[in-house]
Amino acid sequence: MSTEYSNQDQNITEKPLTGVRILDLTHAYSGPFCTMHLADQGAEVIKIEVPGKGDQSRNWAPFKNGSSGYYAYFNRNKQGLSLDIKSEEGKKIFKSLVSKSDVVVENFRVGTMERRGLGYDVLKEINPGLIYASISGFGLEGDMAARPAYDIVSQAMAGMMSMTGFGNQKTKVGPAIADNYSGTYLALGIAMALYQKSKTGMGRRLDVSMADTIFSILEAGVIEYTINGYVARPEGNRDPGISPFDSYEAKDGQVVIACGTDAFWSSLCDLMEKPELAKDPRFNTNENRCENYLTELQGMVDSWTRQHTVDELEKMIVDAGIPFGKTLTMDQVCEQNFIKERNMLWSIHDNGIDDDILVPGTPIKMHGCEDKPMRSAPKIGEDNSEVLKSILNMTQDEIDSLRSKKII
Amino acid sequence: MSTEYSNQDQNITEKPLTGVRILDLTHAYSGPFCTMHLADQGAEVIKIEVPGKGDQSRNWAPFKNGSSGYYAYFNRNKQGLSLDIKSEEGKKIFKSLVSKSDVVVENFRVGTMERRGLGYDVLKEINPGLIYASISGFGLEGDMAARPAYDIVSQAMAGMMSMTGFGNQKTKVGPAIADNYSGTYLALGIAMALYQKSKTGMGRRLDVSMADTIFSILEAGVIEYTINGYVARPEGNRDPGISPFDSYEAKDGQVVIACGTDAFWSSLCDLMEKPELAKDPRFNTNENRCENYLTELQGMVDSWTRQHTVDELEKMIVDAGIPFGKTLTMDQVCEQNFIKERNMLWSIHDNGIDDDILVPGTPIKMHGCEDKPMRSAPKIGEDNSEVLKSILNMTQDEIDSLRSKKII
Repeated sequence: MSTEYSNQDQNITEKPLTGVRILDLTHAYSGPFCTMHLADQGAEVIKIEVPGKGDQSRNWAPFKNGSSGYYAYFNRNKQGLSLDIKSEEGKKIFKSLVSKSDVVVENFRVGTMERRGLGYDVLKEINPGLIYASISGFGLEGDMAARPAYDIVSQAMAGMMSMTGFGNQKTKVGPAIADNYSGTYLALGIAMALYQKSKTGMGRRLDVSMADTIFSILEAGVIEYTINGYVARPEGNRDPGISPFDSYEAKDGQVVIACGTDAFWSSLCDLMEKPELAKDPRFNTNENRCENYLTELQGMVDSWTRQHTVDELEKMIVDAGIPFGKTLTMDQVCEQNFIKERNMLWSIHDNGIDDDILVPGTPIKMHGCEDKPMRSAPKIGEDNSEVLKSILNMTQDEIDSLRSKKII
Repeated sequence: MSTEYSNQDQNITEKPLTGVRILDLTHAYSGPFCTMHLADQGAEVIKIEVPGKGDQSRNWAPFKNGSSGYYAYFNRNKQGLSLDIKSEEGKKIFKSLVSKSDVVVENFRVGTMERRGLGYDVLKEINPGLIYASISGFGLEGDMAARPAYDIVSQAMAGMMSMTGFGNQKTKVGPAIADNYSGTYLALGIAMALYQKSKTGMGRRLDVSMADTIFSILEAGVIEYTINGYVARPEGNRDPGISPFDSYEAKDGQVVIACGTDAFWSSLCDLMEKPELAKDPRFNTNENRCENYLTELQGMVDSWTRQHTVDELEKMIVDAGIPFGKTLTMDQVCEQNFIKERNMLWSIHDNGIDDDILVPGTPIKMHGCEDKPMRSAPKIGEDNSEVLKSILNMTQDEIDSLRSKKII
């Protein structure tokens, strides 16, 4: 035990995935978001891109100085290797790298890696300890495996849109949640497989689909149906099982009030200067409040909030100890103290943009480690020489030859 | 290398977190979702609940036979220990368990564990290899740390609602995404810390906040502001940068069509029997289509889809190779082949409900491992004897005494 303690003191600043090498074949959003989390926590992520072309997200807004902030955000902390893995020589180099790596991550269309002769069955023969991880739309097999799945397709087909929005307006989550959540699940699977590999030496194939991902985050949506036959529908911003628990309009914006208990409700009645409502038989229990929410209670609260500004409401409601929030726009969010205090905006000097930009930092706070970016997202092939020399012991002549043949 | 390969063949069925012991003090949704993922992948998760009372989610719908399906879903694969950690004797037992565990997870209000004398500074002295992981609303320090944060508060204050919905209607994601995503991030942090612990023996404090979580999943929302000063707003179901890429009404439901390329758009024009639109100067490039989407193109596509049923559209559009989805309700989702083929509905005999129920399975598919639940969620204190005997070597008399004193 004392040895462990001494280790702890010595290495607490070392990021948890230090020493893990990941070959990252992913593009767009889901895969790069997965490997971003691994890179942020110390893994050596080598992003492999098509020579002269690169990840499609290099063409995605917002831009600054002609270079993509989108790419810069999701690929910070990674190294850049350009490599044509369709060519024979490129495949050979890739396989050599596989023999010296822990993880391969890919989010191509299902079957692409196999068609290129780089499927798991091939690569595990080269490196039995390899963790091989994939993201797909609907899984690796079955009727739907070949279908292209954009984020909106997953949100529609796995139930998220049927549970979000107002009235009958089935609404997608604005940001591409099927993409980023499947990336996060894959990162979690990889980290667990790395733990097992550290104990046993063994590698593993694992995969995550975007449809499964959405289906797994619907809270009670699925079980309300499988257990009671109830089919969820969009409920706007209210919680159908707790009242008042909703968004309301203020003079100058929107607030949310969440009365999770009778005591909170009673405090709110006092603030509204209608203390008698707390004992009113229409509103005296949560069940009664839910029953009469849409017809009566919602309007009562809303007509009160409309008489005040967001700041006035915040002062009153927070002072009364009632859970409260304000619906902030992005300019307001970025100015909040809680974003600054948590260091959730990292400044990065991006090599492509050739300037400093602010991007969201890691939400996983490892106490003891530095909470800041280590390096810029790479330009295409920015680290070719370093990677090929240090991992494969190539000479500069060999590297120059590869470049002239457009293999890298 | 050959040894590793032989390990792989022998242990591929062993779940990756086998042998990891986790003390789970969490309640409600965010924390239990975190530890569910760890338990699903083989960790020994000991869920600690207040004797005679238990997790508040035991009172959450849907119910069957008087018992909560909500609790059953998120606590499968865990063991149940009832323990009054406010009592001196309960603290002592908890600390003994800490000395023989790898991880403690908690999602109490900030400061609760410290007030009880069970903060990280205390527990790391007992077990320097301990990983101590917390979920909070706005982080562990600062102005907002003490504020209660429900899911809707995080969605409002960290920007998600400002980017979701139609028109000016700022909309929350239906399911409690701030809860489940912060739980998933915490699971990822724990898995990475376990990897590091396996290499070094060292433990670590780590934490995730719900506000940081939401802020980190807004895709380009944050960087559009920090890089270009653009403040995102709700865009309905369309992608403002690609057209046509939206939901449309069919005769009998809603579909989504995602023309990510000029070729897809041209194919869609053929299906609509308006091939001339492909070269129309209003629509011949993605930029022009986006420019004229809301005023002209959206209505054209929608008036075509309204003439057909969802099934007719699916046949035509999928055959044409264009990315397509249908907005399904929960009853329809649960019947999809892709849910069955991926084994995304597990049947569990729940001990509380005393019947079989169907709940979503794990979205992280570890090839080689059995993809099914190992056990029911526990009744309160269901595993008291087993846990206290096997880990702390207690006798039955000692256990009976604790029960009579309501310590367990």
